Amino acid sequence: MTDTVPALLGVNEEQARREEELVQRVLDSFEGTPNPRLKQLVQSLTRHLHAFLREVRLTEEEWNSAIRFLTEAGHITGETRQEFVLLSDVFGASMQMISMNNPANGNATEATVLGPFFVEDAPEIRMGEDMSFGAPGEPLWVTGSVVDVFGQPVAGARVEVWEADEDGFYDAQYGDDRVAGRAHFIVPEDGEFRFWGLTPTPYPIPHDGPVGKLLEAVGRSPMRASHLHFMVEAPGYRTLITHIFVKGDELLTSDAVFGVQESLIKDFTQHAAGTPAPDGRQLPADATWSDVRFDIVLAPGETTGHRLTMK
Amino acid sequence: MTDTVPALLGVNEEQARREEELVQRVLDSFEGTPNPRLKQLVQSLTRHLHAFLREVRLTEEEWNSAIRFLTEAGHITGETRQEFVLLSDVFGASMQMISMNNPANGNATEATVLGPFFVEDAPEIRMGEDMSFGAPGEPLWVTGSVVDVFGQPVAGARVEVWEADEDGFYDAQYGDDRVAGRAHFIVPEDGEFRFWGLTPTPYPIPHDGPVGKLLEAVGRSPMRASHLHFMVEAPGYRTLITHIFVKGDELLTSDAVFGVQESLIKDFTQHAAGTPAPDGRQLPADATWSDVRFDIVLAPGETTGHRLTMK
Repeated sequence: MTDTVPALLGVNEEQARREEELVQRVLDSFEGTPNPRLKQLVQSLTRHLHAFLREVRLTEEEWNSAIRFLTEAGHITGETRQEFVLLSDVFGASMQMISMNNPANGNATEATVLGPFFVEDAPEIRMGEDMSFGAPGEPLWVTGSVVDVFGQPVAGARVEVWEADEDGFYDAQYGDDRVAGRAHFIVPEDGEFRFWGLTPTPYPIPHDGPVGKLLEAVGRSPMRASHLHFMVEAPGYRTLITHIFVKGDELLTSDAVFGVQESLIKDFTQHAAGTPAPDGRQLPADATWSDVRFDIVLAPGETTGHRLTMK
Repeated sequence: MTDTVPALLGVNEEQARREEELVQRVLDSFEGTPNPRLKQLVQSLTRHLHAFLREVRLTEEEWNSAIRFLTEAGHITGETRQEFVLLSDVFGASMQMISMNNPANGNATEATVLGPFFVEDAPEIRMGEDMSFGAPGEPLWVTGSVVDVFGQPVAGARVEVWEADEDGFYDAQYGDDRVAGRAHFIVPEDGEFRFWGLTPTPYPIPHDGPVGKLLEAVGRSPMRASHLHFMVEAPGYRTLITHIFVKGDELLTSDAVFGVQESLIKDFTQHAAGTPAPDGRQLPADATWSDVRFDIVLAPGETTGHRLTMK
């Protein structure tokens, strides 16, 4: 059951035997795990972990560096910082987990990462109202619909929307009590929604810790592609946690957390200052604005709530 | 290059395509890593990590538990506690790393884990002296030799020895300045050494943190098999970090950190109270004692020093 290790070429037979025997001993040690799922998890982890170690022939110095990395990650993690989530994010593990737990289902809208900035109890807005609540940025007119896989409106679905301001910060990052750039609304009978928000702008994930140092060492950017978050919940449907991304954003191909899905890239149409707003809103004379449409298809399934909310 | 995922049976084609495409995107993101070894490490880690996630189909709840586990491990880790080393230990990763970096070399003595209780600058003893320095326990007479793979004595080799007392604690764990149960000596011209120590007794690894909780959940004991630590250094030879274990110890097959190697299990001969000591030492009339012999064979190689010393 142990993985084959191509790099074992060059390792002598007695040494290979010792290494394989050790993997088997570790696997055996978990044989008595009462919970069958936990047993599967620790035994599978053992196999893949040892396959990795043996493939790369990890040195003592590298092992020491790994221990130091995890220790620093643990020490920087606190109430408002989660370095292990970032670590999972930049290796695509978070996105893989999201993908697996939201399997492809016909034309159902794809999911992506929740991110660390979702906050419960965002204020409610009615159709056409503004979720920016004074957060700075270019006005964005958002329209769309929430339907099931047969195209029927999902009236009463609860939609949460949140985003960073044009300085790249979510309200929660300012360390005061402001609530801005986030709201929720209830989808009307016809399934159609509309609201004002802000044209998304790019921002970096926190990169002053060990994960930031790793990204620098591998020549990767900490920037996230510009996006607007959505979470959609309705009884009988799989909770959808997703973003929409801005077509043409040059960060689409290098999003630090691998959150971009082709199907989530949308046309954000730019409008010159003075162009009348679709709902008659009076914008400042020098204000450019944009609009986007996002048609959401919910897969049937369980409402899973906000289980990914991590501090 | 991505691992095959047997458990993908039952995952639909479009979903499998999405998952594989994600793995490839993560691999591609590391393509520009300037250091080729670092590139190998992060790409191999990516492949094995995603193979694990996809094989077990990790749920959101399990992912949350993993993040919490790592966070707790980080927070309990400090000056005198290293939970990530324990984690590496109980999955056999430390032992695998030791094994790979000390490959089988003829009849050279096998290495095992350093453990967290090695301390620099232990006092020097001369042949026949006592390294227990008052630590409580049954006296143990240790004899042995240090030779190369051709059987020639390695005169001048520096040997460090250290062990827990009969209460299962190393001196460093008492939180005072005591130095006991540890020493170093220089191997004489004929390669033969002898000293007094303590008959090893079993003790648990620290198990009041997340690693301890994990061991409990999988039904494993935190106990280490009884052992006496050795580190042997000599110019031109691979530094040997090892233990000897006590034949007949029932913990040999369940050592919490997988440190036991068959070749390191030694006969510890028990002697009744009143049996004269081999060097004429006057032991208390009611004192039992034991003896053991350990013949050490050093592999040629580099003196690597104490690089595994982790706090």
